[in-house]
Amino acid sequence: MSNSQSTNPRSTNHYAVIMAGGVGSRFWPVSTEEFPKQFHDMLGTGKSLLQQTFERISKIVPAENILILTNDRYENLVKQQLPKIENKRIFLEPAMRNTAPCILLSAMKIRQENPDAVMLVAPSDHWIEDETAFSENILTAFQTCQNENILMTLGIQPAFPNTGYGYIQFEKSEKEIKKVSQFTEKPDYQTAKTFLEAGNYLWNAGIFSWSVKTIIAEFKTQLPEMYELFSEGKEILNTEKERKFIAENYAKAENISIDYGIMEKAKNVGVLPASFDWNDLGTWGSLHNQLPKDDQNNAVVNGKSLLLNSENNMIRLPEGKVIVAEGLHNFIVIDKEDVLLIIPKKKEQEIKEIRNQSIKKFGENLG
Amino acid sequence: MSNSQSTNPRSTNHYAVIMAGGVGSRFWPVSTEEFPKQFHDMLGTGKSLLQQTFERISKIVPAENILILTNDRYENLVKQQLPKIENKRIFLEPAMRNTAPCILLSAMKIRQENPDAVMLVAPSDHWIEDETAFSENILTAFQTCQNENILMTLGIQPAFPNTGYGYIQFEKSEKEIKKVSQFTEKPDYQTAKTFLEAGNYLWNAGIFSWSVKTIIAEFKTQLPEMYELFSEGKEILNTEKERKFIAENYAKAENISIDYGIMEKAKNVGVLPASFDWNDLGTWGSLHNQLPKDDQNNAVVNGKSLLLNSENNMIRLPEGKVIVAEGLHNFIVIDKEDVLLIIPKKKEQEIKEIRNQSIKKFGENLG
Repeated sequence: MSNSQSTNPRSTNHYAVIMAGGVGSRFWPVSTEEFPKQFHDMLGTGKSLLQQTFERISKIVPAENILILTNDRYENLVKQQLPKIENKRIFLEPAMRNTAPCILLSAMKIRQENPDAVMLVAPSDHWIEDETAFSENILTAFQTCQNENILMTLGIQPAFPNTGYGYIQFEKSEKEIKKVSQFTEKPDYQTAKTFLEAGNYLWNAGIFSWSVKTIIAEFKTQLPEMYELFSEGKEILNTEKERKFIAENYAKAENISIDYGIMEKAKNVGVLPASFDWNDLGTWGSLHNQLPKDDQNNAVVNGKSLLLNSENNMIRLPEGKVIVAEGLHNFIVIDKEDVLLIIPKKKEQEIKEIRNQSIKKFGENLG
Repeated sequence: MSNSQSTNPRSTNHYAVIMAGGVGSRFWPVSTEEFPKQFHDMLGTGKSLLQQTFERISKIVPAENILILTNDRYENLVKQQLPKIENKRIFLEPAMRNTAPCILLSAMKIRQENPDAVMLVAPSDHWIEDETAFSENILTAFQTCQNENILMTLGIQPAFPNTGYGYIQFEKSEKEIKKVSQFTEKPDYQTAKTFLEAGNYLWNAGIFSWSVKTIIAEFKTQLPEMYELFSEGKEILNTEKERKFIAENYAKAENISIDYGIMEKAKNVGVLPASFDWNDLGTWGSLHNQLPKDDQNNAVVNGKSLLLNSENNMIRLPEGKVIVAEGLHNFIVIDKEDVLLIIPKKKEQEIKEIRNQSIKKFGENLG
């Protein structure tokens, strides 16, 4: 840990890419295609998840070195929420091609600007409260990546055998950074239990770090076609011709995730067990876990509430609205201007499907 | 029945008083002190309950002979909803004195204009669908009151032993109009059951009819002080001095209901068993009974709905809003701009108290 402190948090070699292109359909009706989760103040803090992520990262990466990865329709949302960001730092994917292509292009853009850069890749919509621990962990990763040809991930100590996450198996050792032996996507419950018992498995939070040199070299080895495709444009990245090149070529890239395309096959992968609490805010229930609760374990975002004999509810209202409820237990109640959703918490995984049904019945503008 | 048909429904002797001063607090948060139940389109028909009542009565009473009894704060609502009504037909109670004082004053105003008048007193906020049957019943009552010194009530055939209503006991006979032997307020359940078994009990719906001569004479006998108080102003009723007289004297009148002050003590009371279905729309549950339902027995007023595995709910939304619910059974869900109420149907009687709690917690503007 003390090592990481020696890395200059203001180093101009530090870069970050914030992934902000998702739709967050399990948070419907608040999260919609028009206005997804990461742009909402999901926690009622006065800041959107993207804004919180940006602030967290800007403690260890100069703000002008942070890129936002999203798509065309969210360009204005990004500019509204991060008004100081430069246009060139907003990377708009012209097509949905999963994470590998946009990470490669980002790395190439950063290398073009600073060949000695180390970069962080992080989702825009997760909850991390202990910013000091986060900063220390990332600085440790940066320092490691500056000195070694290593692909770093941050692994989260698993709290329970969650079957919805990916797991990272590491070789047990006394070192702070462990060598990764295997990635496993969404195991069944029994497998997840054995992972927790084994003690050398961590959750994959989608937080990565590497030097641009190392990650681009890895793409050249693992995904040579993609490497060739984008290398043709490397001279014009960060110029005014960039957008045209990307528009013409991006869709030709393979649709593949960074996990599957690079991490699972790479040899030089390390994992740093995170020392902060983490929540992917993947569902209303996981959001409920992170919110302040009343003495009946109800979480109420925005609005005001009078809750009689009502327990364990996740409630979100328009600003200033009052909810008065009685005899409501274990429900998700989401009141948005045009939609009111009331569904048991245990059915939260069905919200994606219910959103589809609603769009079918009431029209696209609801989705 | 055939007799009643001979009464001219357009007779200028026909008058009506619609009671529209209540607050309807069991329909909170839709019904508020600012905008009570009778001014709302509770049934989603496009008309308020007051408008429906006015239209129903105007089939048997010339529209210009219909008085609206309400209080100051609802004057504008009445004018908005009944734009053709003359100012002099809106009687604004300057103080809450229950039903007897305002009915006596109305009768005196009508007598001053037409000493041969017969009048109907009816609530503004009940559901009556069969307007033909209603008209026939009222015309029968009018004809009887024109010819006899009788105080008429309309009694509703009880559908179940409701403990929230008043009951009218009558002397069994073959005549269309029965002689009333007793009024009973809100009996306990066992008593209500014996009433239904006895077969000569009807629900008191608060619908009365009499000639102005008869009712005023009855006040003179039963409530002589009130009679004297208002008789002092009988010459100036329907003149521009009326309002000042009422403002100065109304609050001096005894606070007493027409049922308790007059009907229960009068000797000459008759009841006509109503031949129409009736619902007092006293609670969200009784409203649910009168509304169209989907195949899961859910009633949805305004809005649109996608209801999965959800039964027997009473739902009201802002115009055009969508509700998406799952696993919701026997609830009242009322979404108003500033308040969302979710409460089990079986707790509907508590809404009045819950409204008070909400006002205490969140302020008067919610009530």
